[in-house]
Amino acid sequence: MSPGVLKEIGAAAGLPAQKNMPGSQELVKAEKKTHDMGAIGMAAIGVALWKYVMRYAPHNPTYFNRDRFVLSNGKSQRHTCIFQYAFLHLTGYKKMTFDQLKSYHSERYDALCPGHPEIEHEGIEVTTGPLGQGIANAVGLAMASKHLGATFNRPGFDVVSNHTWCMVGDACLQEGVGLEAISLAGHFKLNNLTVIYDNNQITCDGSVDMTNTENINEKMKACGWHVVDIEDGCYDIAGIVEALEQAKQSAEKPTFINVRTVIGLGSKVAGTAVAHGAAFGDDDVAAQKRAYGFDPDAHFVVGPETRDFFAGLPARGEGFVRDWEGLVGRYEEAHPDLAKRFRKRMSGDLTGWEELIPKSFPEKPTASRASSGLVMNPIAKGLDSFMVGTADLSPSVNMIWPGKVDFQHPELRTSCGINGNYGGRYIHYGVREHAMCAISNGLAAFSPGAIVPVTSSFFMFYLYAAPAVRMGALMRLQVIHHATHDSIGMGEDGPTHQPIELAALYRAMPNLLYIRPGDSEETAGAWTAALSAREQPTIVSTSRHALPQLASTSRAGVLRGAYVLQENAAAVLTLIGVGAELAHAVGVAQKLKETHRVEARVVSFPCQRLFDAQPLEYKRATLRRHEMPAVVLEPYAPNGWERYADAAACVKTFGHSLPGTAAYRYFGFDVDTLTTRVLGYLQQIESDTLLRREFVEI
Amino acid sequence: MSPGVLKEIGAAAGLPAQKNMPGSQELVKAEKKTHDMGAIGMAAIGVALWKYVMRYAPHNPTYFNRDRFVLSNGKSQRHTCIFQYAFLHLTGYKKMTFDQLKSYHSERYDALCPGHPEIEHEGIEVTTGPLGQGIANAVGLAMASKHLGATFNRPGFDVVSNHTWCMVGDACLQEGVGLEAISLAGHFKLNNLTVIYDNNQITCDGSVDMTNTENINEKMKACGWHVVDIEDGCYDIAGIVEALEQAKQSAEKPTFINVRTVIGLGSKVAGTAVAHGAAFGDDDVAAQKRAYGFDPDAHFVVGPETRDFFAGLPARGEGFVRDWEGLVGRYEEAHPDLAKRFRKRMSGDLTGWEELIPKSFPEKPTASRASSGLVMNPIAKGLDSFMVGTADLSPSVNMIWPGKVDFQHPELRTSCGINGNYGGRYIHYGVREHAMCAISNGLAAFSPGAIVPVTSSFFMFYLYAAPAVRMGALMRLQVIHHATHDSIGMGEDGPTHQPIELAALYRAMPNLLYIRPGDSEETAGAWTAALSAREQPTIVSTSRHALPQLASTSRAGVLRGAYVLQENAAAVLTLIGVGAELAHAVGVAQKLKETHRVEARVVSFPCQRLFDAQPLEYKRATLRRHEMPAVVLEPYAPNGWERYADAAACVKTFGHSLPGTAAYRYFGFDVDTLTTRVLGYLQQIESDTLLRREFVEI
Repeated sequence: MSPGVLKEIGAAAGLPAQKNMPGSQELVKAEKKTHDMGAIGMAAIGVALWKYVMRYAPHNPTYFNRDRFVLSNGKSQRHTCIFQYAFLHLTGYKKMTFDQLKSYHSERYDALCPGHPEIEHEGIEVTTGPLGQGIANAVGLAMASKHLGATFNRPGFDVVSNHTWCMVGDACLQEGVGLEAISLAGHFKLNNLTVIYDNNQITCDGSVDMTNTENINEKMKACGWHVVDIEDGCYDIAGIVEALEQAKQSAEKPTFINVRTVIGLGSKVAGTAVAHGAAFGDDDVAAQKRAYGFDPDAHFVVGPETRDFFAGLPARGEGFVRDWEGLVGRYEEAHPDLAKRFRKRMSGDLTGWEELIPKSFPEKPTASRASSGLVMNPIAKGLDSFMVGTADLSPSVNMIWPGKVDFQHPELRTSCGINGNYGGRYIHYGVREHAMCAISNGLAAFSPGAIVPVTSSFFMFYLYAAPAVRMGALMRLQVIHHATHDSIGMGEDGPTHQPIELAALYRAMPNLLYIRPGDSEETAGAWTAALSAREQPTIVSTSRHALPQLASTSRAGVLRGAYVLQENAAAVLTLIGVGAELAHAVGVAQKLKETHRVEARVVSFPCQRLFDAQPLEYKRATLRRHEMPAVVLEPYAPNGWERYADAAACVKTFGHSLPGTAAYRYFGFDVDTLTTRVLGYLQQIESDTLLRREFVEI
Repeated sequence: MSPGVLKEIGAAAGLPAQKNMPGSQELVKAEKKTHDMGAIGMAAIGVALWKYVMRYAPHNPTYFNRDRFVLSNGKSQRHTCIFQYAFLHLTGYKKMTFDQLKSYHSERYDALCPGHPEIEHEGIEVTTGPLGQGIANAVGLAMASKHLGATFNRPGFDVVSNHTWCMVGDACLQEGVGLEAISLAGHFKLNNLTVIYDNNQITCDGSVDMTNTENINEKMKACGWHVVDIEDGCYDIAGIVEALEQAKQSAEKPTFINVRTVIGLGSKVAGTAVAHGAAFGDDDVAAQKRAYGFDPDAHFVVGPETRDFFAGLPARGEGFVRDWEGLVGRYEEAHPDLAKRFRKRMSGDLTGWEELIPKSFPEKPTASRASSGLVMNPIAKGLDSFMVGTADLSPSVNMIWPGKVDFQHPELRTSCGINGNYGGRYIHYGVREHAMCAISNGLAAFSPGAIVPVTSSFFMFYLYAAPAVRMGALMRLQVIHHATHDSIGMGEDGPTHQPIELAALYRAMPNLLYIRPGDSEETAGAWTAALSAREQPTIVSTSRHALPQLASTSRAGVLRGAYVLQENAAAVLTLIGVGAELAHAVGVAQKLKETHRVEARVVSFPCQRLFDAQPLEYKRATLRRHEMPAVVLEPYAPNGWERYADAAACVKTFGHSLPGTAAYRYFGFDVDTLTTRVLGYLQQIESDTLLRREFVEI
């Protein structure tokens, strides 16, 4: 930084930083039910970031090489999204008008100031709120930048060179997902990532000392982070700017800046837990205004001095954009092919995957986790948009393509002999399922479609990751989760690993596709759905054990959610088969016919959400429930199948540790026992006709 | 430790420790599909623990003051439950016969050697498998011991003085839940807890260095742990014993023992990732046997030398039991009243709570989170069996009783002025929802009913905690979760905090009660159900906002899951109301009648699982679905309601950040709009009769 800039910062620091965040006391006061005293304490950090350090363009909010800012402590009730909203307004984001700013926590349906930052709005990179997620998102954003830089930058042409800034509170550093991500960021030596700790030492319950007395700086150092302390985080803008600038120059570590702040700065409850749950009082606001030289009777005023202070930022931002576009223009001349690929990535264009999906598969029985590899690995190999990772289950999830290179700091190679660098696209996340999925959200959020992350683990462990999977669905990010070892067929690991009830969560989760394919052909359909869903995450849920290749399965059918696998004009019953147990339905239909002369039709039903989107006529023609009862066979809790079936062979207890086939037998899920159960149901509804209109567990 | 014992250990260490774990290579080999080479590398640790250090009684496995051992790395596929099973067999647990040991991963339905340790079996303190949970369980077990000791011990009478030992692998130290629990254990200065790190530096994917290069010892020190290194963990039994004995004497910190081991010790793939996913080969087993002086052609043999080595342990254990029972006998004479309370706690007797539940409530509108406080706080105050905690939401969850004392290390008082000691029963968990619930499982598992843990947080954050809630259900532990801020009525925090789909998970989760009470009276019913469920966890799901007190709500009705709130002989429709929206159903019924002359009956439906357990006749009489359609009103994903209703006013998208009443209005959940929607449905099923037999979202 030039001495001139430093001098200017000194002058700015002479003004209390809070002066540059006018109106926020009013906003907090006006909304009596909540309370964002944290925002006041963080004002100096905001000035340092938005005025001096961050590279962004308010009038061009999605400019590709912008710095990314994540407010991990974005929750309104505990923390301080108003902090970000106020700076978006002051720095000139067009949609964030003063009128919008005043709508904070109002009843406006079109408010841009919801109770936490939301990705839909200008200047917001990721939706935050559930604590700790933002750290992991920021790690993903920084990895995306490292990766794209390693892929596309050439000497003299750093076309991807942005920095990621993440603001956290005490809570983010207590949450497991944050701790997982911190450990991994240190491992990856992400020197383009800075975490700024708003260390006000106050949580809802009181002093942080009540629950956390660890030495956070030493902990971060042990995790491979560079640590900087700022003692006066409320006023020392110059010190903060210096620390942030140094962080940008960090040679090989992410930086953790521990900034001491005071919650509720300037109010009577400053520095206490009361400030955590309180709004400023009238007298507090008036006193603060007097101290800063404002008229205490003028409300919601941003003075000309403040407007001037931030006035040049849109123009500066346009300069950044012009410079970068100029660079990319020269890059196109120097490296035309590379630039073409770069443009394709920036546009989110995935063209090419359709042709790479196999048209047919080997006829031998194949675990659908292996079928997933047959489908996805050629695509991951062929299209560099995909970054595939696993939570330490590479040998189990079958997602390695020939010649894959790991995403790693290039020096790691020497220490454990792996083939990796930042250009690599296979990510070893460690046994950190939750961070894996939250980091993937960051990878996907960097720029729509520039990176499509694929995660993988056992299905049961997606319960560990569920809060992050949910955030991906909420943010409408295309992240594909390959969840193997579904159903009880996964066997010996037993009840802790048999996901009896987990499908119920994911089938209910908005904007997520949960798909259980029944063989290789259906697995092709599941991945086709996932790859086509540009604004949805998908869970492709596959088996550990080999599944037979069934006649007449159809990838096109999968895209409709459910379809008739075996029609039967004489049918008295529909059997619904799902995923790893689709073959069971086929087997039961055959057995019913051959042994008991009962005719059944079979419907394959891999995805409820895709089926729900079909026209009513298609749904009725597929299920034919007005003509005959439908029985679903799935060794999961049946919750939700009541919409599509009249009865279920299901599992309502936890599972049992047994080899897969024995586990099926234990739960009466072998074809013989299932056949008996279905016959029993047919007798049952004959003897009690009311049952025909109720849902029956058989 | 006496010099004599040390000498004996020296002699034992002369034998390779692996010799004392005979047959395990065979077991691993016999079960080709899995692979527990980790167990071999940990054998010396096992000898140190079971032969020398741990206080336990094989023939009296639930003796109250026993040391607790938790195999956090208990997963069969990655780690090593066979380790624990082998030692349970060798040390003389009666049910763990050699025949049972050989059944590991077999098809026996009654096997005691499932793919992970299960709490149902002798010598197993908690069910483990999902990684990281065991650390948190161990923290809970250690807290239970600290708490009971502080409550009941008197000078000369340490009636509760056991130690907790927890074995972890690389993965447990990467998982967020483990990291949260580690931080809290350091804060609480649990010197009765020792974590033994089986540091073999190998995971599924390869070297741990691929994903984790942090300095674990420094990290643990920063978290307030005492750290000890053992360089030769495969053979240095004396060194391990010394470290474990020192850990028992730790003055004020938990101890972390970093033990370097070699995975697949003695095999050709020792120390490599191949060993992680492999079984020993025939030649490996033969070579190992030769090296240890065994006959390579004799299979599944435990020699007399080994039997002798462990022979005295049952008798030693009975000595521990006799000594302790003698101590308790003298304690009963010295402190008769205290001893009586102690006996009551040990028996799990909760007698007394029924009388403390209020018979009636104030008539004013009350948030059900506050109603929960009215119900539970007098019980928590009156019965010391309850330990109530929160993940940093004390002001929001209303679970503080007058005069509550915090569970804290007594010295903490000086540093932040809190009223706490180990005898306290209010636990500040910090913002660590997942660890809160996993630690609570440990508190509950210490001895059935001795401690009944209550957790509290916003309902949405129970998604963070879901893997631990699940483990509590799987272990049949009585843990009560008070989940506040349910439904969209919680308001401004918006979609990240509005739990649209979360109820679907918990309604499907086996052995868990998810209950949404509709007013104070129903809240009394919800807690009555939770307190009565001695082998089930419960989620009491309550509102942030005030709910009116409704006429004819019934706590007894809640215990049946659903009940008729308003019967109506002229009804053409049943309205099902749930929890915070029960009043909406009542309002719609009234509006339908007054404005549209449509008669409806109202059913209150707080808990699906309790209702499912009712006789068929009761269920039919309550819902009367064969006579008229039923419409459920709940602003959640409807999945699962299809079993009880024909239509739903529901929410299938994520929520929206608005004040509570505005959020209801935004989603058409105000009484006027709901009435219109219900009328629309009645018209719809008239015009399309097929719809009457389908589930309709209105």
